[in-house]
Amino acid sequence: MRIGILGGGQLGRMIALAAIPLGARVTFLDPAPDAPMSHIAKQICGAYDDERALEQLAREADVVTYEFENVPVASAQFISQFTKIFPPPDALRVSQDRVVEKSFFNTLEIPTPKFARIDSLNDLENAVDEIGLPALLKTRTLGYDGKGQALISTRADAERAWSEMQSAELVLEQFVNFTREVSILAARGQNGECVYYPLVENFHRDGILRLSLAPFLDTGLQNLAQTYAQRVLDALNYVGVLAIEFFQVGDELLANEMAPRVHNSGHWTIEGAVTSQFENHARAILGLPLGSTQTRGYSVMVNFIGALPDVDALLQIPDAHVHLYDKTPRAGRKLGHVTMVAKDDKTREKRLETGDWRFSL
Amino acid sequence: MRIGILGGGQLGRMIALAAIPLGARVTFLDPAPDAPMSHIAKQICGAYDDERALEQLAREADVVTYEFENVPVASAQFISQFTKIFPPPDALRVSQDRVVEKSFFNTLEIPTPKFARIDSLNDLENAVDEIGLPALLKTRTLGYDGKGQALISTRADAERAWSEMQSAELVLEQFVNFTREVSILAARGQNGECVYYPLVENFHRDGILRLSLAPFLDTGLQNLAQTYAQRVLDALNYVGVLAIEFFQVGDELLANEMAPRVHNSGHWTIEGAVTSQFENHARAILGLPLGSTQTRGYSVMVNFIGALPDVDALLQIPDAHVHLYDKTPRAGRKLGHVTMVAKDDKTREKRLETGDWRFSL
Repeated sequence: MRIGILGGGQLGRMIALAAIPLGARVTFLDPAPDAPMSHIAKQICGAYDDERALEQLAREADVVTYEFENVPVASAQFISQFTKIFPPPDALRVSQDRVVEKSFFNTLEIPTPKFARIDSLNDLENAVDEIGLPALLKTRTLGYDGKGQALISTRADAERAWSEMQSAELVLEQFVNFTREVSILAARGQNGECVYYPLVENFHRDGILRLSLAPFLDTGLQNLAQTYAQRVLDALNYVGVLAIEFFQVGDELLANEMAPRVHNSGHWTIEGAVTSQFENHARAILGLPLGSTQTRGYSVMVNFIGALPDVDALLQIPDAHVHLYDKTPRAGRKLGHVTMVAKDDKTREKRLETGDWRFSL
Repeated sequence: MRIGILGGGQLGRMIALAAIPLGARVTFLDPAPDAPMSHIAKQICGAYDDERALEQLAREADVVTYEFENVPVASAQFISQFTKIFPPPDALRVSQDRVVEKSFFNTLEIPTPKFARIDSLNDLENAVDEIGLPALLKTRTLGYDGKGQALISTRADAERAWSEMQSAELVLEQFVNFTREVSILAARGQNGECVYYPLVENFHRDGILRLSLAPFLDTGLQNLAQTYAQRVLDALNYVGVLAIEFFQVGDELLANEMAPRVHNSGHWTIEGAVTSQFENHARAILGLPLGSTQTRGYSVMVNFIGALPDVDALLQIPDAHVHLYDKTPRAGRKLGHVTMVAKDDKTREKRLETGDWRFSL
């Protein structure tokens, strides 16, 4: 089987590394000649809206997938004329616009933070009245890793943020005083079979995921997250891995956003679960049975952001598994990650408190 | 770091898949344009004694390794003029000739089956007298997967085998009535650090490895195998993964042969150990610390030989991990393998007895 991937970043790279043992050959489309996948798969160098490049990718693949959600929906639809594309383009459409996404969640009776579409300063002032402060003014599209967001604590903040951001389409979102941030990774096969990984607890810094702990064990919240994820998967007739990020507030989960792809908060599954999110994504799009999502221990995943740690020192830690993405270091850039799998949560706790791996935080 | 690999088969493919996450870029030399590695790494297409191709590989790599032991020793030495090559060429030299190999074992006080170098029919007759029957007449070099061997049960067999095989250099080996066949995988780093995997029990059919069970738990034999392996590793100032196959006879281990490379009986380590043999080989040659060899459960590895099983059915088994090598099916050819990791040996036992995966045996 031949897989085509839109995007050649680290997520595509890890999908390829999981798909190759299943016998797949991988081609990818990325405009950057030095993309992280460029040394491990065949590249078609081109823009994501270049129809010649898209057609070439489609013709060289039995199935196409994507590794980031800002692929133009029109490109995904264009590809679907020639070959299968999973997840379905509609999942892209929903996840690309925060207003559409949150409305979609609400339609499925999945609670979200309060939000309002903002098209004018007047809209913003009304929304501040209704939602309250503090709140977050965000661009509706193309935001990631905390980009395109402003915290609004006062009416003066609101005016300032409006004047800075008004050229974009905007949404105001309630600032949720959450207990913790958790995410669920789920996969759905072509036959509708669904599997769920245990909840992951996530820690962000400067809007970027820094550390994930898995499993986060809470039967009630796990069931709730799975119920919500299943509604999304079925509503979209989804195929592949989906991630949903939630704010936990007491016993409630508020959906913050979804990613129609493998997700950074699932990297721990490479070593920490029987089947990784990457393998299950590959299995799903290839039409193979999904693999067990059972955990192998208590995992901690730490991102390398902006600079690499001393890999030699890190590999001296038992159970440390280093993944480097072959990217040039740059501030705020995700360059790699490490996953450590402890046999129990006490051991993981101890490692978190005392480990010399903390230099990478 | 850039790794060069002599050979582009499944072993090189799995080394590459383990080395890439460590940030390595991989180039390989193989005369076959459709080698299993050809879609996942840069290929230099050439013969293993083509000095221009060897020099190109060496110049494009910070370290060169090999994935099969029939690389000409002269080629390995040629490469060492330009860049590092691990394991050391001397390990190739020793393992390429059954007489040299067994003599080397004996020098290190590692027992082997009785053997005698055969240069004439007279040598063969004398050796039969000394070693007894049945015995195996084997070519000294280039044998693998049971090729180049004849079982000798009678003096008439001896004469017939001599007349068929006399054009090659030969060795007569005692036929050992062994309790079982086991192997040990060991790795040695550039700083002399050694790690050992638990013993593996191996089952062959038609001279080809069919099934491996790991761990084979026997403290006495484990210690013995590690002692022997350490002698070999240190004597050769070895770097990388080494495999030694033994015949177990009661409490004794007789060394049958060694492979100066990752080994089929270590494929279970991808899922069944904390660090796979492939990752530890990559770590060793890259000068990184070696990873834990601890097991994650009770593994069974089954080779796909000559034809592929129904992969879809196989992947419905929990814990089944399929690895396909992207090779064209041909009788006797290793096309892939599956590893299943059970939580305890009872579960593994049950799966061995009743599993519908047995179609692949």
